[in-house]
Amino acid sequence: MHTLTQFRLCPRSRSIRIALAEVGIEVELVEERPWEWRPAFLALNPAGELPVLTLDTGLVLCGAYAISEYFAGLLSGHEKEGRPAPLIHGKLEERAEQRRLVDWFHGKFDREVTRELLYERIYGHLIPDAPHAPDADALRAIRANIRYHIAYVNHLAHNRRWLAGDEMSFADMAAAAHLSAVDYLGEIPWEEHTAAKAWYARMKSRPSFRSLLADRMPGISPAPVYADLDF
Amino acid sequence: MHTLTQFRLCPRSRSIRIALAEVGIEVELVEERPWEWRPAFLALNPAGELPVLTLDTGLVLCGAYAISEYFAGLLSGHEKEGRPAPLIHGKLEERAEQRRLVDWFHGKFDREVTRELLYERIYGHLIPDAPHAPDADALRAIRANIRYHIAYVNHLAHNRRWLAGDEMSFADMAAAAHLSAVDYLGEIPWEEHTAAKAWYARMKSRPSFRSLLADRMPGISPAPVYADLDF
Repeated sequence: MHTLTQFRLCPRSRSIRIALAEVGIEVELVEERPWEWRPAFLALNPAGELPVLTLDTGLVLCGAYAISEYFAGLLSGHEKEGRPAPLIHGKLEERAEQRRLVDWFHGKFDREVTRELLYERIYGHLIPDAPHAPDADALRAIRANIRYHIAYVNHLAHNRRWLAGDEMSFADMAAAAHLSAVDYLGEIPWEEHTAAKAWYARMKSRPSFRSLLADRMPGISPAPVYADLDF
Repeated sequence: MHTLTQFRLCPRSRSIRIALAEVGIEVELVEERPWEWRPAFLALNPAGELPVLTLDTGLVLCGAYAISEYFAGLLSGHEKEGRPAPLIHGKLEERAEQRRLVDWFHGKFDREVTRELLYERIYGHLIPDAPHAPDADALRAIRANIRYHIAYVNHLAHNRRWLAGDEMSFADMAAAAHLSAVDYLGEIPWEEHTAAKAWYARMKSRPSFRSLLADRMPGISPAPVYADLDF
């Protein structure tokens, strides 16, 4: 059995959990708290970052970028056989658009929203050496960023069937992974963004999303909308 | 002619300048100061990030991830013809190792070193609305991070011919791009890391590096080692 080392609200881990479920690869989940800097974890991934996929062959794949591209490459033969290649697919320019949006979420959105929000509202409580109460100014800035990003998702979802084009791709999975972590904390103003909401409802109702919706952080209940397919 | 919208010390822009020169694609460089949020630039790349490559066909590729993978895909046929494929190459697991290290530099190193250092020492002076003097505590933390990262580069360069394996890849270009921006400011303790220094000297002496070494920031002279091939 393959092993995915991950943390339950980590958006990059979540994007890979969705992707692996979409392509039908079963993994055993192992939880890691990367801020503990465990030597055994650093031996697995010297970057100290999640997720890490250990294949049953012994091959270790570090990070959402290496993992998603590994399976995109492994499954690229599907297209030649007339089946849709999941994750990253189509002509080079279509792939470029999918990757632009993966980068948007795993790069920009992470930096401007997810990383900061999880630090303020989740990790801050969990780090025993440096407990951190949420900072009101930081939360205000993060919430302004969320409104800007959700408006962009809404714009994409209004104009396209999936975020990067006609077919679902890893861009949808990366976007939904980040939004799901933010949604756990009830921080997404869905009502004002109906196209984004309809797209997310489609993502959320996929079997690949089920294990994410069952996740719970001890001591921090999810917002009522979180696991509700009819939110 | 293709156009690369970039900023001269931006490490992601630099990685693509090196990559395009390595694969023999000429571009016209256009400088953009992304913190000015120019509407024409945001129309080109709504993320407001560099670099952006506008091909002479009109296709716009946003970000180092989309651009590097576009050319990796375009040139992957080289391997079938028995020529080395530049940028990302080899078996899936070799590609995964190259991508792990690209992610290390464009992700972790950028967050822990380059982005912060450029903000403290360069961008802070250039942003007219919010001038920022370098913060001594921040610089101390960045310098500690540089020592940690350069030791890792040294470890890789000691054990391998190129950072990700036997052949040069985009991992070397991304790493050298970040180190070159930090080196402009004289912040790399080369003397203590001879394997890293020898690897960087090889990168620096490649024709693809020449235009980077000629770059100058108005008002901020490079460190004496910066353009010296025999540093």
